[in-house]
Amino acid sequence: MRKSGRAPDQLRAIEIIPNYLRHPEGSALVAFGDTRVIVTASVDEKVPPHLIGKGTGWVTAEYGMLPRATHTRSAREAARGRQQGRTLEIQRLIGRGLRACVELDRLGPLTIAIDCDVIQADGGTRTASITGAYVALALAIRKLRASGRIKKDPFVAQVAAVSVGVVDGKACLDLDYEEDSGAEVDMNIVATSEGALIEVQGTAEKRAFPRAMLDELVDLGLLGVERLAEEQRKALAP
Amino acid sequence: MRKSGRAPDQLRAIEIIPNYLRHPEGSALVAFGDTRVIVTASVDEKVPPHLIGKGTGWVTAEYGMLPRATHTRSAREAARGRQQGRTLEIQRLIGRGLRACVELDRLGPLTIAIDCDVIQADGGTRTASITGAYVALALAIRKLRASGRIKKDPFVAQVAAVSVGVVDGKACLDLDYEEDSGAEVDMNIVATSEGALIEVQGTAEKRAFPRAMLDELVDLGLLGVERLAEEQRKALAP
Amino acid sequence: MRKSGRAPDQLRAIEIIPNYLRHPEGSALVAFGDTRVIVTASVDEKVPPHLIGKGTGWVTAEYGMLPRATHTRSAREAARGRQQGRTLEIQRLIGRGLRACVELDRLGPLTIAIDCDVIQADGGTRTASITGAYVALALAIRKLRASGRIKKDPFVAQVAAVSVGVVDGKACLDLDYEEDSGAEVDMNIVATSEGALIEVQGTAEKRAFPRAMLDELVDLGLLGVERLAEEQRKALAP
Amino acid sequence: MRKSGRAPDQLRAIEIIPNYLRHPEGSALVAFGDTRVIVTASVDEKVPPHLIGKGTGWVTAEYGMLPRATHTRSAREAARGRQQGRTLEIQRLIGRGLRACVELDRLGPLTIAIDCDVIQADGGTRTASITGAYVALALAIRKLRASGRIKKDPFVAQVAAVSVGVVDGKACLDLDYEEDSGAEVDMNIVATSEGALIEVQGTAEKRAFPRAMLDELVDLGLLGVERLAEEQRKALAP
Amino acid sequence: MRKSGRAPDQLRAIEIIPNYLRHPEGSALVAFGDTRVIVTASVDEKVPPHLIGKGTGWVTAEYGMLPRATHTRSAREAARGRQQGRTLEIQRLIGRGLRACVELDRLGPLTIAIDCDVIQADGGTRTASITGAYVALALAIRKLRASGRIKKDPFVAQVAAVSVGVVDGKACLDLDYEEDSGAEVDMNIVATSEGALIEVQGTAEKRAFPRAMLDELVDLGLLGVERLAEEQRKALAP
Amino acid sequence: MRKSGRAPDQLRAIEIIPNYLRHPEGSALVAFGDTRVIVTASVDEKVPPHLIGKGTGWVTAEYGMLPRATHTRSAREAARGRQQGRTLEIQRLIGRGLRACVELDRLGPLTIAIDCDVIQADGGTRTASITGAYVALALAIRKLRASGRIKKDPFVAQVAAVSVGVVDGKACLDLDYEEDSGAEVDMNIVATSEGALIEVQGTAEKRAFPRAMLDELVDLGLLGVERLAEEQRKALAP
Repeated sequence: MRKSGRAPDQLRAIEIIPNYLRHPEGSALVAFGDTRVIVTASVDEKVPPHLIGKGTGWVTAEYGMLPRATHTRSAREAARGRQQGRTLEIQRLIGRGLRACVELDRLGPLTIAIDCDVIQADGGTRTASITGAYVALALAIRKLRASGRIKKDPFVAQVAAVSVGVVDGKACLDLDYEEDSGAEVDMNIVATSEGALIEVQGTAEKRAFPRAMLDELVDLGLLGVERLAEEQRKALAP
Repeated sequence: MRKSGRAPDQLRAIEIIPNYLRHPEGSALVAFGDTRVIVTASVDEKVPPHLIGKGTGWVTAEYGMLPRATHTRSAREAARGRQQGRTLEIQRLIGRGLRACVELDRLGPLTIAIDCDVIQADGGTRTASITGAYVALALAIRKLRASGRIKKDPFVAQVAAVSVGVVDGKACLDLDYEEDSGAEVDMNIVATSEGALIEVQGTAEKRAFPRAMLDELVDLGLLGVERLAEEQRKALAP
Repeated sequence: MRKSGRAPDQLRAIEIIPNYLRHPEGSALVAFGDTRVIVTASVDEKVPPHLIGKGTGWVTAEYGMLPRATHTRSAREAARGRQQGRTLEIQRLIGRGLRACVELDRLGPLTIAIDCDVIQADGGTRTASITGAYVALALAIRKLRASGRIKKDPFVAQVAAVSVGVVDGKACLDLDYEEDSGAEVDMNIVATSEGALIEVQGTAEKRAFPRAMLDELVDLGLLGVERLAEEQRKALAP
Repeated sequence: MRKSGRAPDQLRAIEIIPNYLRHPEGSALVAFGDTRVIVTASVDEKVPPHLIGKGTGWVTAEYGMLPRATHTRSAREAARGRQQGRTLEIQRLIGRGLRACVELDRLGPLTIAIDCDVIQADGGTRTASITGAYVALALAIRKLRASGRIKKDPFVAQVAAVSVGVVDGKACLDLDYEEDSGAEVDMNIVATSEGALIEVQGTAEKRAFPRAMLDELVDLGLLGVERLAEEQRKALAP
Repeated sequence: MRKSGRAPDQLRAIEIIPNYLRHPEGSALVAFGDTRVIVTASVDEKVPPHLIGKGTGWVTAEYGMLPRATHTRSAREAARGRQQGRTLEIQRLIGRGLRACVELDRLGPLTIAIDCDVIQADGGTRTASITGAYVALALAIRKLRASGRIKKDPFVAQVAAVSVGVVDGKACLDLDYEEDSGAEVDMNIVATSEGALIEVQGTAEKRAFPRAMLDELVDLGLLGVERLAEEQRKALAP
Repeated sequence: MRKSGRAPDQLRAIEIIPNYLRHPEGSALVAFGDTRVIVTASVDEKVPPHLIGKGTGWVTAEYGMLPRATHTRSAREAARGRQQGRTLEIQRLIGRGLRACVELDRLGPLTIAIDCDVIQADGGTRTASITGAYVALALAIRKLRASGRIKKDPFVAQVAAVSVGVVDGKACLDLDYEEDSGAEVDMNIVATSEGALIEVQGTAEKRAFPRAMLDELVDLGLLGVERLAEEQRKALAP
């Protein structure tokens, strides 16, 4: 039993509110327990320089945190004049994860920009972001298909993400901040609803860990992704 | 009658949800119609360099907008590496407005940092920010007083803010984005619940305007502030 | 009587030297007492991106202070790598003020860039800047009309600016640095020579102020602008 | 057989030249085939702010590439004024990898700064960096122990890193640039010479990959790390 | 005869107005023909980190140009967020030149910051800056000695600077902008009033130049410095 | 006799390894004693904005130092977000020196970017950079001529550079770091193999120096350049 009362393989309470904002082509509020992220998908009728004239589209992502999303206030990145390495690393991860589930050729020459802004952080902000981003992206693409702007469904997979980790020697799913702070191993799994892997990032927080633990964590992560995919489908149900 | 169906002296639907987030000492979600701002108040047991050793406290403010708070996506300030002039101007206004209603000496050597983050913009984001910031600040100060950290009520006034403007030749209260875009004069009034002025910023958007129009707009603004002050009190009621 | 010996409604000694520099299309040195600002107007045969192809022109402004324009040396903004919020706020104010007195359509596709550089500061640098900028702009436009580059007079008004404030409980015109530092209310009025308002920015420096004080300050400001407009006309007289 | 003539589980020619430079406390030139990285370890008798007074030390890392380390010239990060996300991500990875093999308490209050500068890139620059960084770090620590500055061996493990990936459907070890560009899955393994995992980062470059492929890649990576650890020991042999 | 009517060894009209501004400890307006620079010397009771506790002082310099000091407007460095290489190079030259004529030990633990701001440029801005900076520095030091803050005259030499160059094959003194633009060789000489050299910077603008030409240019430069030193003494005469 | 055992007019051991790296069009490792610089020449089929459509080419240079090229580690310029004044000054010097020996018209519309990266510093990094840069540039141009991309030899001179200085009252050639730190005068000479001057930069490090010393230093510098030119020719020999 975990401190929070959850079983090792239990997700926190998951909530995904689709169409959370009025202006974006797609948007969602996603909550993994106390972690809450606003995700938007913005369609821009342009592509980055390296794709001009190639007929293909692009999906990109940015990530941010409100200064007081965390226990103590962090300096605003806009005020400091640069994004931290952690921020850049996370937004690169989100972008890669989404591009892996979309056939960019089918978008035509447009960019879909995903913005993930954490309004409250309690661990797992990057995995909540990816999970919500899929929903925002799907809503934007639904709109583009409805208007005839995109002819063919560009999705090749449904993607979600979850954290797993070793807490007090035991593999646990969807770590909250307290668990994450003390974890011996910390891992993020981005995968499809079918159980195929898109991204595996595991880190020994203290000492190196055995090969067998990797296997256990990946299994647990794939289980979590499967359940999150179900929540996504509910949120997207018409 | 205005396009939105409102009377010239009518505010939009106002909503102030206190204690909106879990971590900050004070927080609120404030909505002026479709404009929605998350405001937090963070207590830091330090003061800026110029106040060290003077026994007095400080109240400061920062302002931001999610990239897709607006009709079309704006570049993220953190990614561009600098805050725009508009942002800096607004956060300076918010800070001045709040400091005018607090006796800084009574805070003791601590800083209360206000963060106003617009998650959806439809005109009046700076006035909604100030109105919500008062609530977040009051909640944080209530906590500081409850814990005995502050002995004496530092508030000397209750502050709120509203926009007024000339639309189609007529003075109107609390402009939404569409009205604001076409306004001939645009004014922001920061005032106390007692009708005293803290800040008046009026701008001719097209051509210079007569002295008499200034008077009419200020009257309307003070009326709006009075009503907003009532909403604040409701939100702060125990 | 004020410390400086001036009457409450008395301006400082005003001097405007037109054509102060050799290279710019228009230039002036403007002095409000010990405050001295070099203002230049530079014509550029380009327009900002959002105006390309619209046939209209643009007027923009930048503001700076020499590091030792002030009592103690301030860090050079170029060396710090960013302009302060105060700087950006002032240059936005100058730009708006000038655009309000010009019919941009009549400029054709060109930009006039105003630079206001304070070489000595003693209060009122932003109002001296605007007052001088009108002169530099008028000189540049005179040259453009003489060469046939602009056909029709683009000015729709003559603009000047002055500060007013409450010092020791009394409304005073054109505050110097010492008065400004201790003022209870600080206000800047940008207006036309005809007494119409372009910008009103009033701030309670300590506590909120009554509505009646606003009226008194605006009256005083309009009086000051009228006199400054006369000085501008003298400087521009052929 | 791979294009380069290597077997799937074959490393490129590995060379580690210890004490490559004259000034640093530890240094090495590491070559994985045509990839060449200069690694230095610099001892600084200070610790970062969050460790002051805790008696513990720190190991940190920075990474860079000469502008023409690559096939075509990349803009110099110093000239652009910011490090790319990729750079920050890599240097965070290197730092974590090294800290996982050192008991920071035993360093005492000093920082060892690792610099990895790629002078020629042909794939696997981050894994070559980590592998060389261990050697530079070990040389610096040897010097610190010889001088009595560090009493007890701070190493708890020997660490190396290698890339693995899926090329033309087949798991391959230590990808060169050409293989890496076309790989379907790209993975970096940081591990100890004993086969325990420190970091696993796997990415689907095109489409999601099956769980079984992860297992195969990790096995291959651990094999590679074992051989690299042998090269490190040779380079460190007295 | 030169285009301007000057003889090859003739300076432009030189003017040095001491105490040009009210706030700085020392200041001057220096004009070399149409080149006009405001120079200020600011005393700060601090020293840079590397001099703390050594009892010695420091002299430093910064340089800037108003955006429209030149024929066409240049972007403001503060707005671009970085100083150009040319700016940094010039301010390093000014600082070195002044430090070479002052015994820093005799200043005690204070910094004198020189600011050279070009308000009108017509060639030779760096040499006019140095020549004026000596005057501003001397005025500030005079004040420090008068107040007893500095006991012993810290000057070991009087320093001035001038440009020389090869125009149409002929060595010329104190080039104006037009001459400078077309010069084959461009050289700046910083020297003492006694004819000793502090800095010689000569550049072939087109092709390499013979050794003999260097000799001729240095002779001419020393002649110019001697005359400038006389102007400095006049400006500093009580 | 110098501390190092060298005669006053003796260079350090000079080594130039051509084609040091695999990717660049031209490259060299140049060593002046313990100073070691990697120089690359990269051909880019573009020209800077001000040369577009003029049919002429461009040669530009950038300079950097690995953080631990020096005795103690320096902060990485990319991490600090700006290049230091010293860096900008050196790269401007290198660029000017190379352009003086090339007929840019004969390059056609392409840019050759020189990168000089110091991997170990022991004095004279800028002169070693220029000396090596000539070799890298010559190798790149040889390739461009071989491929027919450049028709006519663009070189008008062979260029090299060396430092000279006054150490313990005596003129010395090619100062190492220790000599340079204590030198009374420090000078860099960029010249052609024929003894014509391209750049002379001499600085009094302590006090002003006599005219005669300049002459002696320039003679010594030209002698050094002649010998370096011979080393360059050897490195470029087929």
